[in-house]
Amino acid sequence: MNDLCRLSASQAVERINRGDVTSEELVRACLERIEEREPEVEAWIHLDPDYSLAQAAERDRAADHGPVHGLPFAVKDIMDTADMPTGYGSPIWEGFRPRADAACVAMTRAAGGVLLGKTVTTEFASRHPGKTMNPHEPRHTPGGSSSGSAAAVADFMAFMGFGTQTLGSVIRPASFCGCVGYKPSYGEISTEGVKENTGSFDTVGLFGRAVEDLPLFRSAVTGEPVRPLGAVSLQGLRVGFCRTPLWDRAEDYTKALVEGAAADLAKAGAAVSDLDLGGPFADFEAMGRRVSDYEIARALSWERTHHFDLLSVFQQGKMKDWPAVSYEEYREAEGVMAACRAYLSEAAKDHDVLLTPSAPGEAPAGLDNTGDTSFNILATWTHVPCVTLPLFKGPAGLPVGLQLVGHRCHDHRLFEISRAVHAALSA
Amino acid sequence: MNDLCRLSASQAVERINRGDVTSEELVRACLERIEEREPEVEAWIHLDPDYSLAQAAERDRAADHGPVHGLPFAVKDIMDTADMPTGYGSPIWEGFRPRADAACVAMTRAAGGVLLGKTVTTEFASRHPGKTMNPHEPRHTPGGSSSGSAAAVADFMAFMGFGTQTLGSVIRPASFCGCVGYKPSYGEISTEGVKENTGSFDTVGLFGRAVEDLPLFRSAVTGEPVRPLGAVSLQGLRVGFCRTPLWDRAEDYTKALVEGAAADLAKAGAAVSDLDLGGPFADFEAMGRRVSDYEIARALSWERTHHFDLLSVFQQGKMKDWPAVSYEEYREAEGVMAACRAYLSEAAKDHDVLLTPSAPGEAPAGLDNTGDTSFNILATWTHVPCVTLPLFKGPAGLPVGLQLVGHRCHDHRLFEISRAVHAALSA
Repeated sequence: MNDLCRLSASQAVERINRGDVTSEELVRACLERIEEREPEVEAWIHLDPDYSLAQAAERDRAADHGPVHGLPFAVKDIMDTADMPTGYGSPIWEGFRPRADAACVAMTRAAGGVLLGKTVTTEFASRHPGKTMNPHEPRHTPGGSSSGSAAAVADFMAFMGFGTQTLGSVIRPASFCGCVGYKPSYGEISTEGVKENTGSFDTVGLFGRAVEDLPLFRSAVTGEPVRPLGAVSLQGLRVGFCRTPLWDRAEDYTKALVEGAAADLAKAGAAVSDLDLGGPFADFEAMGRRVSDYEIARALSWERTHHFDLLSVFQQGKMKDWPAVSYEEYREAEGVMAACRAYLSEAAKDHDVLLTPSAPGEAPAGLDNTGDTSFNILATWTHVPCVTLPLFKGPAGLPVGLQLVGHRCHDHRLFEISRAVHAALSA
Repeated sequence: MNDLCRLSASQAVERINRGDVTSEELVRACLERIEEREPEVEAWIHLDPDYSLAQAAERDRAADHGPVHGLPFAVKDIMDTADMPTGYGSPIWEGFRPRADAACVAMTRAAGGVLLGKTVTTEFASRHPGKTMNPHEPRHTPGGSSSGSAAAVADFMAFMGFGTQTLGSVIRPASFCGCVGYKPSYGEISTEGVKENTGSFDTVGLFGRAVEDLPLFRSAVTGEPVRPLGAVSLQGLRVGFCRTPLWDRAEDYTKALVEGAAADLAKAGAAVSDLDLGGPFADFEAMGRRVSDYEIARALSWERTHHFDLLSVFQQGKMKDWPAVSYEEYREAEGVMAACRAYLSEAAKDHDVLLTPSAPGEAPAGLDNTGDTSFNILATWTHVPCVTLPLFKGPAGLPVGLQLVGHRCHDHRLFEISRAVHAALSA
């Protein structure tokens, strides 16, 4: 592997800005890595090496340097791109050529990014899997639905990648593939030009290889100036250990790893206490699934009414009756979601951050199922930001992430805490 | 005018279901009316008479009757249609042919509707006007941004029409053109396939000629069975007269008309009391504009970065600096919006409905400006449903609507109250 591939996005940008490396060299390094690894990983649905090199050459001639200047990035194929086909993981959209880039793609390019290619998504960012394999073990799932972006970034084929999360589609594949994943506060990154799955939950997220990478891309898509990550002391940091009501679904080794992390943070001076979720959370999973079942069938109305036969059997089952969930049941479920958001906001107000598993365990064997989202719905459906850190390995030697959950719209603070936690636990 | 055009949507559906009229006859009646009136109104951006007749013939052969079976409807050209060009009111998108229908269009067709054509929208449903004129007085604005759908429905060229409202784009043109307008609770109708303006506010709405028409289309797009409108007694109905902090912007005759309506409702037995909006509403307008300025520039990132020269001067002014509003200012403004939603929900909890102007007055003269949104932002930005009823005329003889505002997600109840209020005030 060309060593340039091993740089994190923030390191690569720093070197570009110093004049130590060109965008073209970074793109060539990625393309070499892709050539070497793609047959085993199948992370990509569309690549155009010449076009990526041409974009890089243009960046190398530019005087202005945006926050991600010259950086090759990957885009999940659930997002529109004006110059690459977009298929949403469905044969219904095969060969589709959008006229415009999704807003987040346009902003990242305006901030200097180089679009390297489109990565594999499950069908409509739902559960029916694409072709991608786990880069650590090809017979295991990379997770979904942002399978390709997670695998590409973890396997050094791209410096950063866009994903989306509606249940657990960023944090879970990042945990399975072994990279950093970031699911922002709801609404933090525009979903314009991103195919809708469940509008109330859909969140554009990011993959990187270091926490320091996240503020660069966040700047590109929010217009915030790049702010350095301030130092956070673990001394007195108020950490809420949140097993969630679904703790029993975690593997024993995952429970031990997360409990060990909590103990290590306490040893380092953090004030760790348990955060139990009661009240409306008793119905959280069932009610959130109702919202999702109603909204995805509504968002995919054209596909459902015109191309039902081209939907996967999984999706057909969900959509054969419209509405499968009545409007009243949907509204009741939305009410429970709102109550859970208010409950969590109150319950977590004396904590700086929550600690919880990223996934029940390592990536499971088999490519038919993208894995369990039980530990991802909490942050997604309550609209708070979360980060997964690639800290651990499971019994099969595959990655296991640790999830940190922050306060709504305090994403930058979550990055700062995440960096401190990562440093403490990887020391 | 062919008398069939004068039927309301609910009357037309009833006659179709009785076998008294065919969908083809309804479409022909609309096409004749369009031929007669379109040169003076210019409500349409795309029409395809043969195709509409072909859809109608298909409906007439069908055994299943959905809630809007055989009804010709109009679609604002901010919404994607698979079989008609879609231009979002911008030369940037001229000649664009979407692959799919917007979800609300697909659902309405699946419920039996016949797509009659695309109606004029202002540029990206913002303020730069299209070509449409007020059907009552061509030198006056029809209002915006849903100019074409409002004019077409009010002028008997279509039975129902889709619009969108981000500030005042359904209620205001309905008031100016003299038809019923309905801006649902936020999120009530899917925005999938609708070009985004301000994601936090964008709401798909409907135009009709009678309150009874609204449940039919609501059923099509929510999957709710069509429920009859229950009778509401005005006796004891708790009406909050809400002048809003912007009352001074209403014309004197509008103030008198709305005050007269409040007095008439009180005479009919309603418990009318004033509802004053204090607290966070002091900053409501300024903060909402911030949210809108930030989000539209973000949503239109591709247009902004690739086709700035093809934006209107108005839009260029808004977008030349990104972000014109900083991220922190945006988040502060979002906080004020959330506080206003909570405040209104508490303040209005002892009222069944609020009464407020639909617009400051009649449609103003001139086609350069689509009119003032001051009385529309309350319901739009707080996410509650509202209806405008075409009850009054102003001093120039042009329509003036009366706005009723309901509780979030109790849209059907608002229809029931609106019908009772309409009956009482038009008696």
